Amino acid sequence: MKQRKRGLFIGRFQPPHKGHIKAIQNLLAKVEELIIIIGSSQISHELDNPFTTGERICMMKSALDEAEINPYKYLILPIPDAPMHSIWVAQIFSYTPPFEMVFSNDPLTRRLFQEAKVKVYNIDFFQRKIYSATEVRRRMLADENWKILVPKVVIDIITQIDGVRRLNELAMTDSPFGRRKVVH
Amino acid sequence: MKQRKRGLFIGRFQPPHKGHIKAIQNLLAKVEELIIIIGSSQISHELDNPFTTGERICMMKSALDEAEINPYKYLILPIPDAPMHSIWVAQIFSYTPPFEMVFSNDPLTRRLFQEAKVKVYNIDFFQRKIYSATEVRRRMLADENWKILVPKVVIDIITQIDGVRRLNELAMTDSPFGRRKVVH
Amino acid sequence: MKQRKRGLFIGRFQPPHKGHIKAIQNLLAKVEELIIIIGSSQISHELDNPFTTGERICMMKSALDEAEINPYKYLILPIPDAPMHSIWVAQIFSYTPPFEMVFSNDPLTRRLFQEAKVKVYNIDFFQRKIYSATEVRRRMLADENWKILVPKVVIDIITQIDGVRRLNELAMTDSPFGRRKVVH
Amino acid sequence: MKQRKRGLFIGRFQPPHKGHIKAIQNLLAKVEELIIIIGSSQISHELDNPFTTGERICMMKSALDEAEINPYKYLILPIPDAPMHSIWVAQIFSYTPPFEMVFSNDPLTRRLFQEAKVKVYNIDFFQRKIYSATEVRRRMLADENWKILVPKVVIDIITQIDGVRRLNELAMTDSPFGRRKVVH
Amino acid sequence: MKQRKRGLFIGRFQPPHKGHIKAIQNLLAKVEELIIIIGSSQISHELDNPFTTGERICMMKSALDEAEINPYKYLILPIPDAPMHSIWVAQIFSYTPPFEMVFSNDPLTRRLFQEAKVKVYNIDFFQRKIYSATEVRRRMLADENWKILVPKVVIDIITQIDGVRRLNELAMTDSPFGRRKVVH
Amino acid sequence: MKQRKRGLFIGRFQPPHKGHIKAIQNLLAKVEELIIIIGSSQISHELDNPFTTGERICMMKSALDEAEINPYKYLILPIPDAPMHSIWVAQIFSYTPPFEMVFSNDPLTRRLFQEAKVKVYNIDFFQRKIYSATEVRRRMLADENWKILVPKVVIDIITQIDGVRRLNELAMTDSPFGRRKVVH
Repeated sequence: MKQRKRGLFIGRFQPPHKGHIKAIQNLLAKVEELIIIIGSSQISHELDNPFTTGERICMMKSALDEAEINPYKYLILPIPDAPMHSIWVAQIFSYTPPFEMVFSNDPLTRRLFQEAKVKVYNIDFFQRKIYSATEVRRRMLADENWKILVPKVVIDIITQIDGVRRLNELAMTDSPFGRRKVVH
Repeated sequence: MKQRKRGLFIGRFQPPHKGHIKAIQNLLAKVEELIIIIGSSQISHELDNPFTTGERICMMKSALDEAEINPYKYLILPIPDAPMHSIWVAQIFSYTPPFEMVFSNDPLTRRLFQEAKVKVYNIDFFQRKIYSATEVRRRMLADENWKILVPKVVIDIITQIDGVRRLNELAMTDSPFGRRKVVH
Repeated sequence: MKQRKRGLFIGRFQPPHKGHIKAIQNLLAKVEELIIIIGSSQISHELDNPFTTGERICMMKSALDEAEINPYKYLILPIPDAPMHSIWVAQIFSYTPPFEMVFSNDPLTRRLFQEAKVKVYNIDFFQRKIYSATEVRRRMLADENWKILVPKVVIDIITQIDGVRRLNELAMTDSPFGRRKVVH
Repeated sequence: MKQRKRGLFIGRFQPPHKGHIKAIQNLLAKVEELIIIIGSSQISHELDNPFTTGERICMMKSALDEAEINPYKYLILPIPDAPMHSIWVAQIFSYTPPFEMVFSNDPLTRRLFQEAKVKVYNIDFFQRKIYSATEVRRRMLADENWKILVPKVVIDIITQIDGVRRLNELAMTDSPFGRRKVVH
Repeated sequence: MKQRKRGLFIGRFQPPHKGHIKAIQNLLAKVEELIIIIGSSQISHELDNPFTTGERICMMKSALDEAEINPYKYLILPIPDAPMHSIWVAQIFSYTPPFEMVFSNDPLTRRLFQEAKVKVYNIDFFQRKIYSATEVRRRMLADENWKILVPKVVIDIITQIDGVRRLNELAMTDSPFGRRKVVH
Repeated sequence: MKQRKRGLFIGRFQPPHKGHIKAIQNLLAKVEELIIIIGSSQISHELDNPFTTGERICMMKSALDEAEINPYKYLILPIPDAPMHSIWVAQIFSYTPPFEMVFSNDPLTRRLFQEAKVKVYNIDFFQRKIYSATEVRRRMLADENWKILVPKVVIDIITQIDGVRRLNELAMTDSPFGRRKVVH
C-alpha cells in the first residue's frame, strides 16, 4: 500500500462555519488526506452543542461539496469524548486510519499529541473572533445576522431542521435535558 | 387485546408536590391509563436531585393512594437519561407500553415527541411558581414552610428518611459528590 | 407513614407465563405489597431475551389485570443488570421502596440477599419444568403449543407484536445482533 | 438544500471483501449517496472481530478507491452497538444524514427498519458462501488462500498490520482478552 | 486468617499535600491497615482534577515513602465515581478488603457509611484552610508559593510531568475538553 | 525524583495461586518495584471469575505478606477491561505509575505492549498446567484437592467467604446472573 500522508483536524462543528471551510482548504495543500474529526459526537440538544452528529456530518459534507473540495482528499469521522485525555488520544488512534500530523491551536490538544510523538501545527483561522461557532450560536439566540458566518448549504440545512428554534427552545426548557449537562 | 388509551406524564419528581397530584387527577380524565415517568432515574444525592428513584416511587405511589386514585389507572416507571434527545425518546418507547399522547409544557419535550408523531398536550398546573419542586427544595434549605406544598404522605416519607438534613448536607459537602455533577 | 410490608419477586419474564401469575397470587397472601422486578431490563432482541422491557411490563400488567389481582397490591419495576452481584443488590435498594423479604429459589440470589440481611423465602412453582419461560420460547421455535403455557392476554400481545416471528428471525439472523450477546 | 437520495449499507467488515465492493458498486446505481455503516465499531481484537475501526475504515476506503468508485457518492461512518435494537435504530438516525432506504438481507435488520417506516431492499451478493468475512477469517487461521477473496489493497493493509498473525494470536491467547467477549 | 483491623481514608488527592500525609500518620496509630481510596479515579485533565490516577498514586506512594511510613500498613486503591451514593458505597465494599471504620469529616460521606453500619470518625486536619488541594491548585494558577504545601517528592513529580503548565493550559483551553466537564 | 525501575505483572487472579507468588518472587529480583495488575476488575460472580476485586486484592496482599515479600517493592492495582486492546493499554498507562517493562507469556499482551515500545519479558511459571487458576476452580467444582495449589492464607480467605460454595452456586444458578455473561 502506498501510504498516504494524512493530517487530523479536530472540532465540534456546532455548526461548521466559513472559517472552518477556509482552514480545511488551506490544510489540504499540506496533506494528501485530511481526517476531519467531529468531536463530542455523543452529545446534542445542549445550548453549546445543539446539533446531532448526523446533522453536523451532513452540514460539513455539503459545505465541502459546495466549496468544490475533492472528496477523495478528506474523511469525516465522529469521535465520542473519553473520560481521560490520554485515553481520548488512544481512542482516536483506534478509530482513524494512521495519520502523521495534527492541526490545532488549542494548547492542551497540542501538548497531548506532542507527547504521543505526533507533529502538531498551528491553524491560521480567518478573523477568529467573528468566524466562530460560539458567535454563530450567540447570534442565533440574539436574532442577529448569523447567516453571513456560515456556508450557504449550512443555512439551508439549519433552516430545514428548524435549528434556530431548537436552540431557542434549549434556552427556554426546564426539562431535565437541554439546559443542564446530559450524562450517558 | 383491547388496546388501552395511554398517556405519558414525565417529571423528575424531586420531590412530588401537590401540583403534580392535581395534574395527574386532571389527566386521568383524558386517558384510560397514565404512564408516570420518573426521569433522570440514575441520579440522586445532588442538590437538584436529592432523592433516589426508590424514594421518589415510594412518595409518588403513597401520594396517589392518599388521593384515592385508582391504581388500575396508572403505571409508575423510572427512565434514565440518555446522551441524545432522539435516543431518549427511543428509549422511552422501548421501556414503556405503547402510548398515544404525551402531556408536557416543556417546549423541547413537546417538539421531540411531535417529531416522533405522538400527540402532545399542555398541562394546566395550579399556581406553577409556588407548586414546584425547585421551590420545595429552596424552602427546605431556607428553613421555610415547604410542608404546605407537598401531600401529607410525602412529608412523612421525607421526615422518615431525614430528607431535609440530607439536602442540607448536600449543600455543605465538599466531597467529590453532592455539590458537583456525579457522572456514571 | 404507616409502613407497608413489602416483598420482592425477581424475574426476567421472557415472557410471563401462568406459573408466574400463580406464584404472584400466592405471594400476595404473605405481603401487603409485592414489588415485581423485571430483571435484565436493558436487554431485548436476543434468543434468550426476545422482548423489550415495555413489552414485558405490558404483558405482566395485562396478565395481572386478567387474573383480577388488585393493582393496589403490587408495583412493577424494571432493573438493569450490574457488573457485580453486590452492586446489583445495592442498585435494587436504590431503585425500589423499602422491602422486608425476597422470594426466590435461585441459590445465588438467595445468598446475596441473605448476606444483605434480607429474609428470603422459597417459591412453590406449579409444574416448574413445563411452566417456564425457557419452555415457552423452545415451543415457539419448534412450532409446538406454547399458548397453553401463558395467560390469554399474553397470547394476544405476542400475536400483536408478531413475537413468534421475531424469535424465529433472531434464530436465523447473522447480523451483529440477535444471536450474539449485544453489549452496551 | 437539494435533498440527496441516500441509502444505508450496514456491515461489520471484518474485513471488507470483494463481495462487499461488488455489492456497493451495484447499490450506487440505485442511490445518489450510499452511507456505509461500520457496525460494532467499539469492538476489535476478538476472534470474530479482529480489526479496529480505523483499520476497517482504511481498508474500505482504499478498496473503494482501488475500484475507482467516486468518493462523492459514499460516506463511511462507524456506529457502536446499542443494548436494544430499537435504540440502535434511533442511534443510526442520530449519527447519519437522512436516508430513504436500507439495503440488507438480514431478516431482523430488515424488520426493524420496516417498523421505522424505512424502505428495505435485498442485496444480490456474488457467491455468498465464499465471499464472506467469516470465510476470510477461517482461511487465515487454516493457512488457506484468503487473498483471493479480498481486494488487493486489503491484502496490503492486512500484511502491513501483520493481521494474520494477530488473528492467530487471538486464537491462542489465554489473556482475559481475545478469546472471550470483552465488555466495556 | 487473622483479621486485620482496617480503616478507610477517602480523597481525590489532586494533588496529595502535607495535610494528607500528617492525617495518614495519625490514622495509622488507630488501625492495623489503612486503605487510602483515590476517588474520582476516572477523571483527569480538568481544572479541579488535573492529575491522572497513575500520577496521583505515584505522588501518594512516594510521599508516604518519604515520610518513612511502613508500606505494610496501607493499601492505595483507585475507585471511580458511581451515579448514586448508595451504589458508590456498595462499589467500595466490592473493590476493597473488609474494613471496620471510615475516617472522614464530610457530612454526607459520614452519614452514608453510618447507614451502612460502618463506624465513622473525624479527622484532625492541620490548618485545613491552607493545607488543601484547592489552595494548592489556586496557588499554581496564581503563580504563588504552592511548593510549601506539598511533600518534596510531590514537587518533584509535578515538576517532572510539567504539571503547573498543564493546569494553566486547562485554564486556557477552548477545546471540548479541559474547561468543561468531560463525560464518559 | 529518583525514578524507580518498575515492571508490570498482569493477571485476573481468580484466585491467586502458588505459581503466581513464585513468579512474583522471581520478578522482584529484576525490578525495583512490581505493579501487580488485577485485571477484569469490574467482573465477579461468574463461573470463570468468581471473586470480587476486594477479595482478590485481599488474597494477593495476604499471600505476599505470608511469603514475607517486602511491601515496599510492589503495588497492587485493579484495572477494568476496555472495549479495545489499544485503549486498554492506554488505560493502564493512565492508571499506573510509569513502568519500563512488562512480564507476560500471552502472545497478544506481548505484542500490544511491544507496539507501545515497552520491553516485554517471558515469565518462568512453575508447573504451569497444575499451578493455574483454571485448575484451582476445576478442582473446587469437582471436590478435588485444590488447597495444595494456593497459599495458606488464600485457603483461609476462601474458607471465610465460603468461596467454594459460591462457585458451586454459580454453576447451579439459573438466575440472569452467574452462568451467563453479566454486562454493565
